[in-house]
Amino acid sequence: MNDELRDYLIHEEPYYRPVGDEVELYEAAYSVRMPMMLKGPTGCGKTRFVEYMAWRLGKPLITVACNEDMTASDLVGRFLLDAEGTRWQDGPLALAARFGAICYLDEVVEARQDTTVVIHPLTDNRRVLPLERKGELVHAHEDFQVVISYNPGYQSLMKDLKQSTKQRFGALDFNYPAHDLETEIVSHETGVSADIAGKLVSVAERARNLKGHGLDEGISTRMLVYAGSLIHKGVAPLAACRMALVRPITDDPDMRDALDAAVTTFF
Amino acid sequence: MNDELRDYLIHEEPYYRPVGDEVELYEAAYSVRMPMMLKGPTGCGKTRFVEYMAWRLGKPLITVACNEDMTASDLVGRFLLDAEGTRWQDGPLALAARFGAICYLDEVVEARQDTTVVIHPLTDNRRVLPLERKGELVHAHEDFQVVISYNPGYQSLMKDLKQSTKQRFGALDFNYPAHDLETEIVSHETGVSADIAGKLVSVAERARNLKGHGLDEGISTRMLVYAGSLIHKGVAPLAACRMALVRPITDDPDMRDALDAAVTTFF
Amino acid sequence: MNDELRDYLIHEEPYYRPVGDEVELYEAAYSVRMPMMLKGPTGCGKTRFVEYMAWRLGKPLITVACNEDMTASDLVGRFLLDAEGTRWQDGPLALAARFGAICYLDEVVEARQDTTVVIHPLTDNRRVLPLERKGELVHAHEDFQVVISYNPGYQSLMKDLKQSTKQRFGALDFNYPAHDLETEIVSHETGVSADIAGKLVSVAERARNLKGHGLDEGISTRMLVYAGSLIHKGVAPLAACRMALVRPITDDPDMRDALDAAVTTFF
Amino acid sequence: MNDELRDYLIHEEPYYRPVGDEVELYEAAYSVRMPMMLKGPTGCGKTRFVEYMAWRLGKPLITVACNEDMTASDLVGRFLLDAEGTRWQDGPLALAARFGAICYLDEVVEARQDTTVVIHPLTDNRRVLPLERKGELVHAHEDFQVVISYNPGYQSLMKDLKQSTKQRFGALDFNYPAHDLETEIVSHETGVSADIAGKLVSVAERARNLKGHGLDEGISTRMLVYAGSLIHKGVAPLAACRMALVRPITDDPDMRDALDAAVTTFF
Amino acid sequence: MNDELRDYLIHEEPYYRPVGDEVELYEAAYSVRMPMMLKGPTGCGKTRFVEYMAWRLGKPLITVACNEDMTASDLVGRFLLDAEGTRWQDGPLALAARFGAICYLDEVVEARQDTTVVIHPLTDNRRVLPLERKGELVHAHEDFQVVISYNPGYQSLMKDLKQSTKQRFGALDFNYPAHDLETEIVSHETGVSADIAGKLVSVAERARNLKGHGLDEGISTRMLVYAGSLIHKGVAPLAACRMALVRPITDDPDMRDALDAAVTTFF
Amino acid sequence: MNDELRDYLIHEEPYYRPVGDEVELYEAAYSVRMPMMLKGPTGCGKTRFVEYMAWRLGKPLITVACNEDMTASDLVGRFLLDAEGTRWQDGPLALAARFGAICYLDEVVEARQDTTVVIHPLTDNRRVLPLERKGELVHAHEDFQVVISYNPGYQSLMKDLKQSTKQRFGALDFNYPAHDLETEIVSHETGVSADIAGKLVSVAERARNLKGHGLDEGISTRMLVYAGSLIHKGVAPLAACRMALVRPITDDPDMRDALDAAVTTFF
Repeated sequence: MNDELRDYLIHEEPYYRPVGDEVELYEAAYSVRMPMMLKGPTGCGKTRFVEYMAWRLGKPLITVACNEDMTASDLVGRFLLDAEGTRWQDGPLALAARFGAICYLDEVVEARQDTTVVIHPLTDNRRVLPLERKGELVHAHEDFQVVISYNPGYQSLMKDLKQSTKQRFGALDFNYPAHDLETEIVSHETGVSADIAGKLVSVAERARNLKGHGLDEGISTRMLVYAGSLIHKGVAPLAACRMALVRPITDDPDMRDALDAAVTTFF
Repeated sequence: MNDELRDYLIHEEPYYRPVGDEVELYEAAYSVRMPMMLKGPTGCGKTRFVEYMAWRLGKPLITVACNEDMTASDLVGRFLLDAEGTRWQDGPLALAARFGAICYLDEVVEARQDTTVVIHPLTDNRRVLPLERKGELVHAHEDFQVVISYNPGYQSLMKDLKQSTKQRFGALDFNYPAHDLETEIVSHETGVSADIAGKLVSVAERARNLKGHGLDEGISTRMLVYAGSLIHKGVAPLAACRMALVRPITDDPDMRDALDAAVTTFF
Repeated sequence: MNDELRDYLIHEEPYYRPVGDEVELYEAAYSVRMPMMLKGPTGCGKTRFVEYMAWRLGKPLITVACNEDMTASDLVGRFLLDAEGTRWQDGPLALAARFGAICYLDEVVEARQDTTVVIHPLTDNRRVLPLERKGELVHAHEDFQVVISYNPGYQSLMKDLKQSTKQRFGALDFNYPAHDLETEIVSHETGVSADIAGKLVSVAERARNLKGHGLDEGISTRMLVYAGSLIHKGVAPLAACRMALVRPITDDPDMRDALDAAVTTFF
Repeated sequence: MNDELRDYLIHEEPYYRPVGDEVELYEAAYSVRMPMMLKGPTGCGKTRFVEYMAWRLGKPLITVACNEDMTASDLVGRFLLDAEGTRWQDGPLALAARFGAICYLDEVVEARQDTTVVIHPLTDNRRVLPLERKGELVHAHEDFQVVISYNPGYQSLMKDLKQSTKQRFGALDFNYPAHDLETEIVSHETGVSADIAGKLVSVAERARNLKGHGLDEGISTRMLVYAGSLIHKGVAPLAACRMALVRPITDDPDMRDALDAAVTTFF
Repeated sequence: MNDELRDYLIHEEPYYRPVGDEVELYEAAYSVRMPMMLKGPTGCGKTRFVEYMAWRLGKPLITVACNEDMTASDLVGRFLLDAEGTRWQDGPLALAARFGAICYLDEVVEARQDTTVVIHPLTDNRRVLPLERKGELVHAHEDFQVVISYNPGYQSLMKDLKQSTKQRFGALDFNYPAHDLETEIVSHETGVSADIAGKLVSVAERARNLKGHGLDEGISTRMLVYAGSLIHKGVAPLAACRMALVRPITDDPDMRDALDAAVTTFF
Repeated sequence: MNDELRDYLIHEEPYYRPVGDEVELYEAAYSVRMPMMLKGPTGCGKTRFVEYMAWRLGKPLITVACNEDMTASDLVGRFLLDAEGTRWQDGPLALAARFGAICYLDEVVEARQDTTVVIHPLTDNRRVLPLERKGELVHAHEDFQVVISYNPGYQSLMKDLKQSTKQRFGALDFNYPAHDLETEIVSHETGVSADIAGKLVSVAERARNLKGHGLDEGISTRMLVYAGSLIHKGVAPLAACRMALVRPITDDPDMRDALDAAVTTFF
């Protein structure tokens, strides 16, 4: 493996509990280097899944947190000036394509649609990346794959992928894990007992039912891990839930009451 | 041929199955160096056609994936700074014009109308490209031709070519291939049997009828190739179709049901 | 003549057929160096006319294809960095003013109104161009003249010249040539017989009547030359007309039928 | 401790009076390095609390006053040019992550949502900061923590944190202190008697009741400290209150009368 | 006089015919260095008047054609890079202030209001120009004066001077000259007889009555000079008027007929 | 005192006539280094007051004319490139904070709200200015104070200070001086007799009553000083008033008649 990518290898197995056949489907997709789109709500484990798959496949993983300021140059690369003049620096996408990594564009809808267009020639049978500013045509390494994550709840007229982008990806749906599995995850990640972890999951399930009825998003697995960690450090469960589950996601007094009531029901 | 363009020659015949007289018409257009506009939906084979024609004519092909961030400088070139000061670097359009390539502006409506204006002097009888920043007037090489692709489904008040741009091009219409031809293409590109390929095409035809009735775009030939590749790798047809044909293009539950039903009808 | 402008001289007489007294009027205007505005639809011959006049007057012609990205610096010039530091590079307007060329701003309404303001001091009795960034006041060469083209069909609240700009120009109206003259032009430029050329002109005349009734612009002389060239290369007239006259300007099925019907009427 | 951060250590105990269990909760959150969000109105003591906690924990504190012009580069770092060419300069976020400080993003909603995205990989279990432009992946120091402040009164469709950002933080609510505690604070900070301090607090309480009824915000503790300081310097209480409490927050004559009446009620 | 300004001295008396006491009023204003605002329609002689006054007072004149792209730096100056590093270059306003010229901001409403703010400290009793980027405070030379031109017909909500800018100027109104005076001017500037000049003025007067009734602006004195020049060169009066007076200002067929009729009435 | 600030000291007492206890209140505010906001209409003497106070306190005064183009870097400083590479240049705010000046942000609402945020850490008890780009934390000099001016008449949804900014300032109201005081000021500043000065003030008072009834702003003291100066130079009072008081502030014929009538009433 090229030295440039050595830092991006994942050496320890990330903790990931499969919820269905997503591991096998991803492996099949990778075997034909199909670009992949992971769909699902915030904090349900999409990023962890990609880390797990990269570890399992033994491929380096380059992650890009997309944002609206991101330009095509941030992905592709740019000229930098040093003592000898301008020097080309590959961006994360060019690095991954040139030397063979999985390139993961996290929250891709946050990037402007027009930035996203630069991945097109890498996601059809050409598998090339034209570096127009450098005058080079990078032919993607055989290990290279593009993966994007996508939260359908954010879809709007302003922020969505173009059809011509979507059609370049296979898609896998993700959601919060089932009760027992999520309990196991929370307990494993925080050290709290299965009993406490189960109560936290029950609180989250109540909140997830409020999504669209006053809450923009439910309580994610990641938030449960925060609450469990506080409890494991000795914070009272009520205080931990208020601080980690309720206060962060709403300032509406009625909604706060509803969520606090859910907490006291279980603790 | 100039060294600068050697990388852009296509050495192996791209797999392309003509659907009508488009090959002969393009050859006639190229013989008078008429700028060409290829119209049709995403993933129906426009890019493959240009690659095939470039190979057939033995001319280098420089492809530019247009996007809204693209400036005139990205097409025409710019000054770069190195140890000796500023140095001019031709953009893809200038490179193609100077040394004689086919310059293919893919998804040209994605570029701002005002960027597109720089191709005007190359697309009338002058066939020149003024590099105003360099103070040079490039007279196009006799092999040079401009080709653009254009998806009429995207036409809107905000995104369309100007009349003064459109009038500079001859136009060819493209669409998804007829059933038997598309079946042959999917089978050839993926290795699945004609039977399975035909079923995939039938699924696509159902989806294409839903265009405008809940789907923005139908399922493209490219997507069928993805699904076929998964099946050829051993993925179950239902899972492969969900992952490659249905999940990527819609999150609407009803639409997903309709498409899933189409899949189970044929598999 | 200054070496800088030698490339911009037109050595061969451009083919131009006068339609009225426009040649004499332009010569009178040039004799008093009156800035000129050429008005008329896309592709009716305005650019060819300027080339012809520049050839006839023996003056170099610098053409600028205006676009909305164009800044005042693109016209006037800028500092470039080289090994000795910054170096001034005249833009096309400064070059023309300094050494004495006709400067032709094509499709001037495409430039932002505010960019256009830089030509003001060159288009009144001062005939100077202040290079504020360089701290120089260029007094225009006695041969210098500004010419702009302008398509009244594009006039809108957003895109129009300011009154204070318009008042600085004499104006000449252009339109498509009369039937016989246009037939002669098409035949001369493509090699097709007068009979075929006349039929093409008749098709165009039908389409021009549809302008404002479903078509944004009619079929231009330039498009007829494209169609004629294809026919001269052996393409069947119906296919040539569809490709060069109909497909480029509309995707509306009814309008396409109407235009196709016009084509079959004459061929 | 790294030299780079020595300037950011707080050597003297900041004056802070706890209003509840916020000190213990913050310590528990820090012990698991949970990113924290401090919610509350302008001038109620959020910044002072962070300074106090940084002093108490013995960690350096890097504060960033967020604004809409702030780019991701302002947080993460950029290349600077010096005699040897470009040199990387860590931004405050990279500095804090690399060497282990508490990084406090004050008034984080003022930054554009898209800038805020750069803190995502630092606020989940990855705790990394990718410096894409430098091609480096910074693994956060074990002392590093992100804290943001947030005024719920500013929430609007245009300016709010994304759900995917909010879910990465534990939250603590802040408000103006209770009457006696605020009186003690004002007296301590300004040197005026408890009697005068209490009257100032009473004026503020009246104004806070007008919030949403003609006033956008109430009178903050910070403003009371200003008024008290003026009185301690010998300015008459009425003049001090007009200058420090009333004139700054409203130009509406009725509202000024109402506030002036409140002042004269107590002084 | 400083060498920097020698190019901006006007050596020959500009042809200017006073229409009232504007010369004396301007001299009084200059004697107290009152900033001046010249109000009136396009092409009525405001620029010529400033040139005449500068010549009469023996002061150099630096003219800036304002436009929306103009930044404060374009007026004030900027750092340029050369072999020794950055070097400050005064903009026209700084040059005029430093060495003592009349600085004429032509069509000042075209500049953004916020750019205009940089003249404020030069137009009150401070008479200073802070060069913040250079860290210098320029005290204006005793000969320095600011003059702006302003077309009230352009006033709109979007484009107007701020009150805080307007209040810094004395104002003089300008309009087209009276019939006999304008006749004399046209005859003097073009060489045509007083009879022809008078007819041209009569045509203009008709057109000026149509302002607001289909014409945005009337025909200016400058346009009459254009028409007269063409006639003096031998162009037939009707053709000269169409080209120089009618075609440039309107494309409306009815308005063109009305103006053509006015022309034939007098010629 | 530091050499950097020596140019900003005011050596001669500015002419200022107090209208109330504003001098004492400002001195008390300065003694506790309270940031100050001066509110009032254009041209009523706010800037002169700050100059007077700076002279009285013996502190240097750095004035910044705020505008919408102003960036945080313009206030704080930036890196400049010279022969040895980049060099930091303090902006006016950093200069004042570092070495101890009064920093006066004139017409602060003209700056974008987000730029204004950079003064926050200097206007609470921290009194620091983080230079993020330089990686330095400037602790304000003990003499440093921020003063801003603010015209409530400009308040609008688009242009207003944020509450979190307003709450950091004590405020003083300013208005035009009373009749006798303004008469004394006009006479002192221009040399005209008290009789003439009084008449000018009477004209202004009439105009100020029209504010909001056709006039955006009344006639300011500064304008009266212009008119008086012209009269003192021998211009007839009617002409002087038209030029300095009426023509600059309105183009509306009725309003001009009303103001001209006011002038003839008194002269």
